[in-house]
Amino acid sequence: MSEESSVLAQIEEHRAKIDEIDKELVALLNKRAGHSLVIRGLKPGAHMGLYDPKREEEIFEKVDSYNDGPLYNENLREIYACILKVMKETPSV
Amino acid sequence: MSEESSVLAQIEEHRAKIDEIDKELVALLNKRAGHSLVIRGLKPGAHMGLYDPKREEEIFEKVDSYNDGPLYNENLREIYACILKVMKETPSV
Repeated sequence: MSEESSVLAQIEEHRAKIDEIDKELVALLNKRAGHSLVIRGLKPGAHMGLYDPKREEEIFEKVDSYNDGPLYNENLREIYACILKVMKETPSV
Repeated sequence: MSEESSVLAQIEEHRAKIDEIDKELVALLNKRAGHSLVIRGLKPGAHMGLYDPKREEEIFEKVDSYNDGPLYNENLREIYACILKVMKETPSV
């Protein structure tokens, strides 16, 4: 096997691992969304507004505390800003 | 327990579940980033450019195929656009 095709094979192996991780990520994001939607439905009964900046900051701080790298905290916060934005936009079932 | 405090308690339970999910999400995002960084280091040896639009589209299509809801495909694509952007920005170790 040539050097280049050996490197290509290694890249393909890592991509296959990423695909497996993405399956789990998608499942977890959906599980998270399920809980978000339930919370959204419950909030009026607790006289709570939909947007809770204190809870959002708490989430960012917890995410920082869970982070062992190689991603930096700023990277994770950027991803989580996206996740939280999408969770707010998802129509209630 | 009053109606309102019962609802607040339920919200707290769902938030605790979300916190557990976030621990797993952060671990998986870091695992994914690890593989991305290895791929980035290998690419020059395969004469591949860092940006691969064909692979990015493949990732979006796979994410669609993994999606059982309640998130819509567009929601997941939005999150993944963020993830892929951050993965590209993460400095190589």
